[in-house]
Amino acid sequence: MKILFIGDVVGSPGRGALKEYLPKLKSKYRPDVTIVNAENSASGKGLTKKIYHELITTGADLLTMGNHMWDKKEIFDFIDDVDNLARPVNFPKNNPGKGYVIKTCNGKKIAVINAQGRTFMQAIDCPFETLDDLVDELRKETKHIFIDFHAEATSEKLAMSWFLDGRVTAVAGTHTHVPTADERILPQGTAHITDTGMTGPYDGILGMEKDTIINRFRNGLPARFEVTTGRTQLNGLFIESDQQTGLARSIKRIQINDDHPFFD
Amino acid sequence: MKILFIGDVVGSPGRGALKEYLPKLKSKYRPDVTIVNAENSASGKGLTKKIYHELITTGADLLTMGNHMWDKKEIFDFIDDVDNLARPVNFPKNNPGKGYVIKTCNGKKIAVINAQGRTFMQAIDCPFETLDDLVDELRKETKHIFIDFHAEATSEKLAMSWFLDGRVTAVAGTHTHVPTADERILPQGTAHITDTGMTGPYDGILGMEKDTIINRFRNGLPARFEVTTGRTQLNGLFIESDQQTGLARSIKRIQINDDHPFFD
Amino acid sequence: MKILFIGDVVGSPGRGALKEYLPKLKSKYRPDVTIVNAENSASGKGLTKKIYHELITTGADLLTMGNHMWDKKEIFDFIDDVDNLARPVNFPKNNPGKGYVIKTCNGKKIAVINAQGRTFMQAIDCPFETLDDLVDELRKETKHIFIDFHAEATSEKLAMSWFLDGRVTAVAGTHTHVPTADERILPQGTAHITDTGMTGPYDGILGMEKDTIINRFRNGLPARFEVTTGRTQLNGLFIESDQQTGLARSIKRIQINDDHPFFD
Amino acid sequence: MKILFIGDVVGSPGRGALKEYLPKLKSKYRPDVTIVNAENSASGKGLTKKIYHELITTGADLLTMGNHMWDKKEIFDFIDDVDNLARPVNFPKNNPGKGYVIKTCNGKKIAVINAQGRTFMQAIDCPFETLDDLVDELRKETKHIFIDFHAEATSEKLAMSWFLDGRVTAVAGTHTHVPTADERILPQGTAHITDTGMTGPYDGILGMEKDTIINRFRNGLPARFEVTTGRTQLNGLFIESDQQTGLARSIKRIQINDDHPFFD
Ligand SMILES: [Fe+2]
Ligand SMILES: [Fe+2]
Ligand SMILES: [Fe+2]
Ligand SMILES: [Fe+2]
Ligand SMILES: [Fe+2]
Ligand SMILES: [Fe+2]
Ligand SMILES: [Fe+2]
Ligand SMILES: [Fe+2]
Repeated sequence: MKILFIGDVVGSPGRGALKEYLPKLKSKYRPDVTIVNAENSASGKGLTKKIYHELITTGADLLTMGNHMWDKKEIFDFIDDVDNLARPVNFPKNNPGKGYVIKTCNGKKIAVINAQGRTFMQAIDCPFETLDDLVDELRKETKHIFIDFHAEATSEKLAMSWFLDGRVTAVAGTHTHVPTADERILPQGTAHITDTGMTGPYDGILGMEKDTIINRFRNGLPARFEVTTGRTQLNGLFIESDQQTGLARSIKRIQINDDHPFFD
Repeated sequence: MKILFIGDVVGSPGRGALKEYLPKLKSKYRPDVTIVNAENSASGKGLTKKIYHELITTGADLLTMGNHMWDKKEIFDFIDDVDNLARPVNFPKNNPGKGYVIKTCNGKKIAVINAQGRTFMQAIDCPFETLDDLVDELRKETKHIFIDFHAEATSEKLAMSWFLDGRVTAVAGTHTHVPTADERILPQGTAHITDTGMTGPYDGILGMEKDTIINRFRNGLPARFEVTTGRTQLNGLFIESDQQTGLARSIKRIQINDDHPFFD
Repeated sequence: MKILFIGDVVGSPGRGALKEYLPKLKSKYRPDVTIVNAENSASGKGLTKKIYHELITTGADLLTMGNHMWDKKEIFDFIDDVDNLARPVNFPKNNPGKGYVIKTCNGKKIAVINAQGRTFMQAIDCPFETLDDLVDELRKETKHIFIDFHAEATSEKLAMSWFLDGRVTAVAGTHTHVPTADERILPQGTAHITDTGMTGPYDGILGMEKDTIINRFRNGLPARFEVTTGRTQLNGLFIESDQQTGLARSIKRIQINDDHPFFD
Repeated sequence: MKILFIGDVVGSPGRGALKEYLPKLKSKYRPDVTIVNAENSASGKGLTKKIYHELITTGADLLTMGNHMWDKKEIFDFIDDVDNLARPVNFPKNNPGKGYVIKTCNGKKIAVINAQGRTFMQAIDCPFETLDDLVDELRKETKHIFIDFHAEATSEKLAMSWFLDGRVTAVAGTHTHVPTADERILPQGTAHITDTGMTGPYDGILGMEKDTIINRFRNGLPARFEVTTGRTQLNGLFIESDQQTGLARSIKRIQINDDHPFFD
């Protein structure tokens, strides 16, 4: 199976970059399924119904989220009506939405799980125990399991990939907005990358206007962080898995920006 | 000026990888100066006198450190006797050691600063204010300024690079032990990478035995983390700067492991 | 039912204070059950088998713990052999030991639960969800339920007491080692105090030698924290509950130190 | 000198309690100076110009603040125009406002310093180093020095009081909103309390509506925290110092609520 994953889309510059490059990436890679992390797609924080539809129209089959899940209030109005949006599966059990989506794309069934780490983040249910049980269950339905592990600490992200090695197709990190260069296939066949990186402004700080962030570090004063403008970047992954075993055959980092222009 | 920087050397596997590849890297890149982050070089935590000498003998001209600075007690016995070891400059003013080193290598004078972030880390003096003042002062002596910014959060690391853009040669991140793929030259001429990555075991978690770390995430029980064995990796940077302005002309990521073998 | 609770006993000074005052407190208050928080009883960190027996011999009927639960390795050797020791109930499910104890003392049945908060502490299972279910279950056995809620943040501790108001006898906070003055009976009948305070040295910082702690705040250098010597204090609670409903009738703070000498 | 200090005034219930009891407390204690922590006085977060004037009119001579310092934007408009408002002295040097106020009240000169801790809080300058220097300097002007140390961790608060013991009149903690019962005079003459407690709603959580806070702990969903209504409480301190040495002669906790009614 061929999986295309696009890292955290930030605001309108991120959606613009997605519109520009997703068709080209689809032509180039011919993915069976396209997954997009949408936690920052609405003005840098959260997801609205309008933007949900925009991302689907742009070409996403499935969306994953993260700690900015609930930043836009209207998410509560539509989350339980859609079947292609996963929120962190280890959020409190009483939360709306679901933590994974199973979908058949191009005749191939894939399970996409969104999970969130706890180190330097909100205290939620243990992602290891949650995924340990869930993966066993989902494997009865499909061996093609893609996990967007939204976490801060490299230790927790590496631990999760090694923990699930051989049981899922891929564990792709998100959240830090900076792509890591450690994409690889672990010994038992699971594709890993610590962070996929973001899609949006190329000259900001995590997509936000940089002077505001720098000043905040320097003076601690309250400030409104805005998505910045200018040049954009897109970061993503292309993963191929064995149709029989669901294990990864290849993982390729996709990085498009002025220093790494897109090539067909 | 040609600068070779090697990311966090972890334990004896890290020192072994350094001994194997540093001579080859020197042949290939002909650096004027070789800088090595040594905060994990003694059994994964800290630096001893013996290993200090071992790293210098292996070919390091200058060493930088980080949050594991004081993990080995004997550091206090020799830190004030050596002139090529920098500890985080924004540690409390009453700490032994110095936060930067100025050295002439191959007839070219370079200042190497070690600084540490505060997000998700120990509360210390503001790295932005500290570097703002220090960089201005050091520029009177040399325009070639290399900063090892040892920090956890991508936001703080990107903020620092943008903050110093045009005033220093390079701001290279360390601490997360995972190399990022965002090496670039910022618009005003400063080379940036969010994290250089580590040098040591390739199949551990940040260099440590992986099952112990995974179990710790799962059960929270106390455990002794040990440097793991097996295959190794080396991560580093090669930076070229303009002799006149000290600004970066190029930054290249060096990544050696079984998935990325060394080539001459 | 009459409940005597003694806050975190720290090291040998804490055990000494307990030996000195527990008999006097028992004479004065005639408790049906005596509960002691023992998480710091062995040299300030954890509990050994020897000290477990010492505390029981001194007069404790039941022991509770906290984040220092596993600091002494030998706890693993005896925890599953004893029936009067509760560890935080919301620790990972795979942990040894149990999170609550039901015991009949003086012909009256009491359930004692130990739970731990998450704010500024280790990420574990949600204490609210865990206690919500557990309290409902235990109430089928006894209405006398005492909870030692070991937590850092006043907000989380107050939230727990209000959450359980009317369903348990008392929610007594521990962990900060400083007694709070907010003991009260909440409107639905549950006794509350944010923190019970500690039992041990009176002139240290949380029981530890003060200069070491002050220096650590000032220089960040590693240091070995030792239980300090000199004058001692004891902090505890005396709670009376209605035999029928299990709800609290009174909560009284017990504070013994040189500024508040013991009176019969 | 006689010092009356009122802990964190929360919203309009807090201001109401202050208006009701401050005149009575002044009649009873005849303080030379009245200090009020105002960081939560405007709708639970921050301070406006109108409420600044209201608090002064109600009888405060000096105001201290804390981490909610900048929550109301209009503070920036008047902070540099008033001479009786102290913000945390160890905030970044580039911040507006001042960290201490020296004032002569009833013919007696007092210095009031506001400082903030770092454990579990924002990373700012070291409060120990800042106060170490500042106290030495202020002692040249007056021996009567009152410090509102706004901090979370009991260890840091106790460390500060012990650190300054004998050099200042009092170190009174604020921020946790729960009064501690450990008020005492340390061996060298400095009055200490870990936390003074808050002034405002008696049946909320830190002054806020309790169900919202409980739900937030349980579901992690965004929610607007509002100051709650109903019964109120006032928590404060009365300290007497030696006119010659500035050292404390007595420290008395003031606690007014339905369980501890006010008595003349
Ligand atoms: Fe994101
Ligand atoms: Fe995120
Ligand atoms: Fe490191
Ligand atoms: Fe580090
Ligand atoms: Fe304790
Ligand atoms: Fe504790
Ligand atoms: Fe407050
Ligand atoms: Fe506060």
